[in-house]
Amino acid sequence: MTNDNFQKLISHFMKFPGIGSRQARRFVYHLLHQDEATNQDLASAIADLKQSINQCKQCFRFFSSRTEAPLCTICQDSNRDQRTLLLVEKDIDLENIHKTDTFTGLYFVLGGLVPILEKNPASRIRIKVLTDQLPERIKGGLQEVIIAVSANAEGDNTAEYLRETLGPFLAKAEVKISTLGRGLSTGTELEYSDRDTIRHALKNRE
Amino acid sequence: MTNDNFQKLISHFMKFPGIGSRQARRFVYHLLHQDEATNQDLASAIADLKQSINQCKQCFRFFSSRTEAPLCTICQDSNRDQRTLLLVEKDIDLENIHKTDTFTGLYFVLGGLVPILEKNPASRIRIKVLTDQLPERIKGGLQEVIIAVSANAEGDNTAEYLRETLGPFLAKAEVKISTLGRGLSTGTELEYSDRDTIRHALKNRE
Amino acid sequence: MTNDNFQKLISHFMKFPGIGSRQARRFVYHLLHQDEATNQDLASAIADLKQSINQCKQCFRFFSSRTEAPLCTICQDSNRDQRTLLLVEKDIDLENIHKTDTFTGLYFVLGGLVPILEKNPASRIRIKVLTDQLPERIKGGLQEVIIAVSANAEGDNTAEYLRETLGPFLAKAEVKISTLGRGLSTGTELEYSDRDTIRHALKNRE
Amino acid sequence: MTNDNFQKLISHFMKFPGIGSRQARRFVYHLLHQDEATNQDLASAIADLKQSINQCKQCFRFFSSRTEAPLCTICQDSNRDQRTLLLVEKDIDLENIHKTDTFTGLYFVLGGLVPILEKNPASRIRIKVLTDQLPERIKGGLQEVIIAVSANAEGDNTAEYLRETLGPFLAKAEVKISTLGRGLSTGTELEYSDRDTIRHALKNRE
Repeated sequence: MTNDNFQKLISHFMKFPGIGSRQARRFVYHLLHQDEATNQDLASAIADLKQSINQCKQCFRFFSSRTEAPLCTICQDSNRDQRTLLLVEKDIDLENIHKTDTFTGLYFVLGGLVPILEKNPASRIRIKVLTDQLPERIKGGLQEVIIAVSANAEGDNTAEYLRETLGPFLAKAEVKISTLGRGLSTGTELEYSDRDTIRHALKNRE
Repeated sequence: MTNDNFQKLISHFMKFPGIGSRQARRFVYHLLHQDEATNQDLASAIADLKQSINQCKQCFRFFSSRTEAPLCTICQDSNRDQRTLLLVEKDIDLENIHKTDTFTGLYFVLGGLVPILEKNPASRIRIKVLTDQLPERIKGGLQEVIIAVSANAEGDNTAEYLRETLGPFLAKAEVKISTLGRGLSTGTELEYSDRDTIRHALKNRE
Repeated sequence: MTNDNFQKLISHFMKFPGIGSRQARRFVYHLLHQDEATNQDLASAIADLKQSINQCKQCFRFFSSRTEAPLCTICQDSNRDQRTLLLVEKDIDLENIHKTDTFTGLYFVLGGLVPILEKNPASRIRIKVLTDQLPERIKGGLQEVIIAVSANAEGDNTAEYLRETLGPFLAKAEVKISTLGRGLSTGTELEYSDRDTIRHALKNRE
Repeated sequence: MTNDNFQKLISHFMKFPGIGSRQARRFVYHLLHQDEATNQDLASAIADLKQSINQCKQCFRFFSSRTEAPLCTICQDSNRDQRTLLLVEKDIDLENIHKTDTFTGLYFVLGGLVPILEKNPASRIRIKVLTDQLPERIKGGLQEVIIAVSANAEGDNTAEYLRETLGPFLAKAEVKISTLGRGLSTGTELEYSDRDTIRHALKNRE
């Protein structure tokens, strides 16, 4: 099939997370088999998406913007515990943690992780905005910053960078900085656990 | 995230082949991270897709329609061998076979397969259109109809239905009806081959 | 192939962990392709295995028994920390933890886990022997019993049973009872973490 | 665990097809948990295996040898079709084909495949014995030699070598030489088929 729209759609879909050329092609054929109204509905939802969704000026998560509110519902909610601030890589992590109902504080979306050997870490995550917010948040009662990133090399590197960068300032303000606990995650079998997991599981025994 | 467009997009993406709710959600976040122009480009490509692509009146494959030609380039190409007609389930199968350059005849897209125990097979595939086309194609020199469907239960059932339905008429017109050869496909190990594959591989030895 | 030894070996190998009939059969053909001396060497190693290996009278792990020592080298080692006792399901878990060099105390092999709804848990693990050993171990300085089982339903059930059974006695003796810490194990991505893991990771933050 | 028999068994089991060090270790612990009689039974079955099984002097498959017969039951069976000889890589392939009851002729186990770029192919398969057998087999009525090897690079290379080596002699004797038919094996989907499979499936259409 040689067609501008066809090829253009394949290119777009190949940029979707986890989608290769073969599946991108199947997506276009899928659309060709939908009725006209369905495709118009999809197209207009995509066209309007960013207008209908704002990024919170404080935590940088996306939220529905019927009103012109600059802050999301979580940041506006004065019942949330202002003493803890959870730093996450991306919206989906935030959503996954939020829906567990196990965290009662506030969030901040870093917008990425810092790869190992990155020369300019500040270009990868919202460290400057976060630093600028901290004095205000401390005035508001902040007592602990929790780094909540994935337990892999990039996550560890990001945590280390955050501790180095924020640590001294937070220490002076007597704000703790912590990372998520390591140990056995649900389903982990001891027989297959690595040294690091076992070490943490022993240290964090409950 | 509670937002009409957000939820609507998740619903749309969950209808894409092979996409579950988690990946649909990641797709929407992916779009939120694109710039406005990229999303508008994607939206308009989707909105215009069906207008810019025709379905061939003869073989029913999709093709680019800059001109108002009713037939695709393959059906228009008088150099293609008019003696063989290859029946396929869907456009992607046709594309995959076509790009191998091993078939020189014409194609016909059935538009589906006939599930086992289907009471109304004619509602599943373009059997009526095909039947209507056959006299003209026979006049044009047709000598063989090749059923080129996947080697699974639904494919076998479709082949059987096509042989029953088209067989008598084609026999009278001295047009052969055949199915793709079975045997060892590339990479098959004998140790793990089933009885059917071994039987065909012995029968079709080369 | 119909042969008594052949069939007998397939039956034996099918009882090996993770081995089905097809692989069992491949094992026998593998043996048929070895030279006679190799098979005799394998056979005598299997025949002598249990005589050459003792089970420690104290921790119940298997150990090499050139001398007639009733206790394994770990139990005999007075440099090991007598204050902590780690309960594990099986030898392989013990080995995996031991080789990380992160635990300095003593071990006890339970010999199994307690399945959910098991009516007679005492038939599944060495609870009686353990209970009998505790007074002596407490005299020897025991301060904490660590339940180190896999983080799945059976492991949780076993831990619960152990806490119920040993808890009151240990509490009186002022011996702590703990389980391995839960949280993010190495490689865990937040996006895919379950509620329980996130809850523990937040609670055990470091 | 440091013990001669333990380590020796791990080494033996790691040579079993598809077994790594971790599973080899689990096998030994499995044996330690069996009762003494079971292990003795396994050991003696392994020790006696090769004495209780012969390799057929004609087709080189393994067979049970209660009598001192030099030929296996298939080679002795005068009802088998003497006109076709099927060449296979190994016993398991022969068994898999034999149990389908789709082949009525005789077999010959090559004992391996010829890797690409192998300088001494004759060291990899029983080509010399086979060549020596052919005159007698031709006198007995042989009309076709079927090369039945897996449809991968090594299988193709072996088939090519066999055609080159046996071809001229067989041609003179008017004995055909063939390979198993290629095409769609059971379960193959057209969308994912490679060029070679499609080409063969078209050529071998039925």
